[in-house]
Formats: sequence, structure tokens, C-alpha cells
Amino acid sequence: MNLNKAIQHKINNKTKPLGSLGKLEEIALKVALLQNTLSPKINVPTLVVFAADHGIVAEGVSPYPQEVTWQMVMNFISGGAAINVFTKQNGFNIQIVDAGVNYTFEENLAIKNLKIAYGTRNFLHEPAMLTDELFSAFNKADTLVNEIFSSGSNCIAFGEMGIGNTSAAAIIMNKITGIAIEECAGKGTGLSNEGLVHKIMILKKAMLKHQTKSVESILQTFGGFEIAMIYQSILKAAENKMLIIIDGFIVTAALLAAHVTNPSIINFCVFAHQSDENGHKAMLKFLNVEPLLNLQMRLGEGTGAALALPLVQAAVNFLNDMASFESAEVSDKLIN
Amino acid sequence: MNLNKAIQHKINNKTKPLGSLGKLEEIALKVALLQNTLSPKINVPTLVVFAADHGIVAEGVSPYPQEVTWQMVMNFISGGAAINVFTKQNGFNIQIVDAGVNYTFEENLAIKNLKIAYGTRNFLHEPAMLTDELFSAFNKADTLVNEIFSSGSNCIAFGEMGIGNTSAAAIIMNKITGIAIEECAGKGTGLSNEGLVHKIMILKKAMLKHQTKSVESILQTFGGFEIAMIYQSILKAAENKMLIIIDGFIVTAALLAAHVTNPSIINFCVFAHQSDENGHKAMLKFLNVEPLLNLQMRLGEGTGAALALPLVQAAVNFLNDMASFESAEVSDKLIN
Repeated sequence: MNLNKAIQHKINNKTKPLGSLGKLEEIALKVALLQNTLSPKINVPTLVVFAADHGIVAEGVSPYPQEVTWQMVMNFISGGAAINVFTKQNGFNIQIVDAGVNYTFEENLAIKNLKIAYGTRNFLHEPAMLTDELFSAFNKADTLVNEIFSSGSNCIAFGEMGIGNTSAAAIIMNKITGIAIEECAGKGTGLSNEGLVHKIMILKKAMLKHQTKSVESILQTFGGFEIAMIYQSILKAAENKMLIIIDGFIVTAALLAAHVTNPSIINFCVFAHQSDENGHKAMLKFLNVEPLLNLQMRLGEGTGAALALPLVQAAVNFLNDMASFESAEVSDKLIN
Repeated sequence: MNLNKAIQHKINNKTKPLGSLGKLEEIALKVALLQNTLSPKINVPTLVVFAADHGIVAEGVSPYPQEVTWQMVMNFISGGAAINVFTKQNGFNIQIVDAGVNYTFEENLAIKNLKIAYGTRNFLHEPAMLTDELFSAFNKADTLVNEIFSSGSNCIAFGEMGIGNTSAAAIIMNKITGIAIEECAGKGTGLSNEGLVHKIMILKKAMLKHQTKSVESILQTFGGFEIAMIYQSILKAAENKMLIIIDGFIVTAALLAAHVTNPSIINFCVFAHQSDENGHKAMLKFLNVEPLLNLQMRLGEGTGAALALPLVQAAVNFLNDMASFESAEVSDKLIN
């Protein structure tokens, strides 16, 4: 019996009607296959929040001023944000990374300094980053994920903070899926209808300005530093056979790019929450995946991943800890 | 400022875009209103699994033999069922109750003996219970819920085990909602298509046999003991201003009955999971409520409630523990 069949046999012999744990059964199978075992475990689950700024905010694509990025990072550091509350509750390690915030943080703070620059350039006028900056972001992400893996973690998730980053993500989505930019762009943290029309106009203008041929050129041209790091982190996590909990519009945009580079990446991913941000539903449909949660949230930060972890843990726990029909001496014989 | 407005003000001033925590914001508001405080808490959450047998199984309405009820109860007692795994993981106290199983459990087991009888009568031929039995079930449920409340619990959920109980629940649903029995009855633990046709035929025959005018007469006529106890437990929990996490086809049928008796009961309820059992979606629509989860499960036992508890806890935690824009010194000023 191959492993896939052996896992399915173990699932089917738990004391429950066949298939009755629904999506949890799919996750149990996925995690067990990934870990190549009948008894998978979630070890040191770690959520990395990458923060960076975006030059495109000069064009008025967000209702919030750019300094909200560093202010929210300080909030992450002092434990007051939604992602802090949810990771603490559900047993996720949290790591905050400065991927390129337009602010100098003091050295003694609980933030990892992987800063590429003080924000990207304004992609309405020039590429968001230099080639060197893109590869520096990749290298730093590789090192970070390898460190987390070496610390014993086999489960990783990503969050982000960056005023203006839904603009970058919308273009990445458009470039990779071919879905019209009007369907990719949304209200982000709370644009008005007029604001959204303006944002789409800016994005269209910016896309006319640049030719992009590869995933790397898309990331370099439109950014941001946090998206480039998440893209590379996803690829590196899969190399390390880690389970990846995907959440949010920005992170899923990075996954779309990673999916071009490595189409089998989906085998390593569990999808946490369907964001209320316009476009996220279409991204998930494009990838042909279904999220665990739909709570009408649109907060980013990785909040959906933090909230989904107990469901992933439940999938692993039922596989390990539920009795089988044999062990519990429960009849699995149907009458007919 | 009244409490409702004060809670909403507190929610809106958390460091996040307005409304961006979606359904969690609704739950935070509900729990805070229920507890009459800006700082609600979930104390000693308790999940009670009521088990009982059903005379109607003599008509072949379930693919599993009746002894699976007591066998699964033994599985609950020894900790091997899905509900044990999920309540243990998420910090739910679990209490197993013999409401009327067709089996004599040894006295030293971790099960509360509230047995009304060794299963209900076959409602194809006679009412499932005597009037005295119904009121005895109500009294025992009242005492149980008051005990749990007195132990410091302010949050309760219900599960059930009873081969044949989807038949009783389908009739209760039909009687209260007026929805055709074909839409109320489902495959339960795994009937075949032919089995479902037979089940519906039996239920129609049974309904022609009896006149029922009140909620109490519906419960007495069609049962079961576990459903009657859940019905009364829901009403008593609301009297005690406890938060009630509703999950599953059987428990929601009991809630439909409780909703006739006390239409404001919905204010005390959070809805956990939309079951794959046919009819559950229509029940939720009838009540005009949306569940937190849709994991395609159809296991019963209260498993959805156990899995939803971390989301309820997250709602309470963000309200208590997130920073406000003022306290975190994050700009809440929009640019425009």
C-alpha cells in the first residue's frame, strides 16, 4: 500500500461516518503526505510579518498616509495589533521583519532588520526596485526561512504591512492571471469609490509605462520589497517541505508569482481565509483552491492564517488522536 | 452613550481599517452586549454531549445499527471521538450525558446519568415519549445547565449522539418551518439514495399518524430525549445570559423549537458551522443567521462548536487586547 492510500485508510477508519470531517480530512491527507508519515505534527508554527513602503503612494492610491506603515510596525512590536492578539492566542510564533520601511527603527527593538531601502521607487515613473535590490530581497528571505526551518519549524505563514501594497499586488495579479485590472484592484484599507477609480487609472498608466516578461521583472518593476521576500520565502519553505498557510490578498499575489516559478507549490499550501478585498476570491479561483475561512475580514497582517491554525491543528490531531472503529470497538458494519 | 454605541466605538478605534475584522466584530458586539460590559470574557466554556436512542430506527431509517449509540458513548468516555480531540485542543470542558440510551452504563464511568428511558418509542406507531417523560427531560436539563452556570461557565455548546436522530430532527424542522419534508430529511450518517427515499416515506407516514399543535407536543411525539434536553438547555442558558454556540442539524432543530418559545433566543447564539447534512443550510436561512465555518463536515457531536470556539475567543480577545489608534499612536486620519 502506498503512503497516500495508507493515510486515506487511516482517515477512513476513524470513528466517524466516512468523509464526515470534510475539509479537515483533505488537510490531514495533505500534511501527512508532505511530511511523509502517517503521524504528522505541526512544530513551531511561525508567522513572519514583512513590512515595507511603496513609492506609488505618492499618487494617492491609499487613503492612509505612508507613516502608518512604521506606526503599525511599532504597534506589532509592542503587541497591540490584531496579528499579535491572534498569534498569541493560537500559539503561532511571530517575527516582524523590516523589508524596506521608510523609517529608521531603533536597534534594540524586536524587529529583524532586512531593510533593502527606505521604500520602493514610484513605479508610475520608474521600476520599483533595482535588479540588485530584488536579488538582495531574495537572498535575505532565503536566509530567514532557513533559520526558521533550522529552529525546528515545519509550518510557516506570512503577513504584511505596507501602505500602498494592494496596488502592487493588483498589478502582479493582473500580469499573472490576465484578469482585468478593474477586477484585481480593490478598496484596500478603505478607499472611496472615487478613490478606487483614481487608483485603477494610476495602475493602468503605470502598466503602459513598463514592459515585463518574467515573474522576476514583474516583481522588480512593481514591487514591493515585502512581496518579493514573501515570494522567495514561499519557494524556500517548499524546498524545506514546510507546510505554508496562505492568507490575504498580498500574500496570495506573491504565491501567484511563486506558482509560475514552481507549479507544484500548491501541494505545500493550505488556504486560510478569503479576504473581502476585491480580487482575492478571483485569485483563489484561478489557483483552484478553497480557503478554510470566510469571515469577511480585510485586515491583512496574516490575521486569517493565525485564525486558521487551530483548524490545521485539528486536522493533524484527529489523524493522530481519534480512535479507530477497531480500537474503540464501535461497529462499522452497515445494516444493509 | 448607550452600551451598544460604546462597544461599537471601542471596536472602531482598534488599530485596523474600519470594519475589517468582519464577522469577528459582530461576535464581539454580541458577547459584550450579552455580558453588559465593554470587556467580555469567555469563562469555563462547556460542551455537553447528550446521547439517546430512537424507536424509529426499527423502521430502517439509519444505515447504522442502534448499538452504535452506546458504543460511541463509550468512545466519548474514553476520549477517542472527534469531539474529544477538538474540545481538548481548544479548551472546552466536555460533559457526556445519558439522556436515554438503550444500554446500561456502569456506574463509575465519566457520564452523567439523566436517563429518561431506554430509548424513545417508535413514533411510526405511538408518540415517542409520555408527557411525564418530556417534563422529566426538561427538569433534568434545567438542573444540569444551572449546575454548569454555577460552576462559573458563561458559554455553553451542545452535541448529540443518537442513531436515528436526524429523522426526529427533520420532522421538527418541517413542523416549525413549514419546509417540505423532502428538504428537511437527509442522508444522516450515510444513507444511500434508496435509503433516503425510504426514510422520507417513513417520516411522511409517521406525520400523517399524529396531530401536533405545540412545540411541546412536537417534541413529545417525535422525540428524542436528547433533543428535548437540548431544547430546554438552550432556553435555560439564555435565562442565565450565557453565550450559546449552536452547531449541527440536531442542535439547530432544538433551537428552532426554542426559537418558537423565545424568539429573542437568537441574541444569545453564535452559529458555528454549516453542516453538509441536507436541511441545515435551510434551517440557518430560516433563522436568518450565518455560521462562522463551512468545512463540509457532517459528524454531529458538537464538533463544529468545538472548532468555532477559537474564533469566538479571538473576537473577545481583539476587543480586550488590541491597541486603539490613540494608545498605539497610529494615525487614524485619512488623507482626504
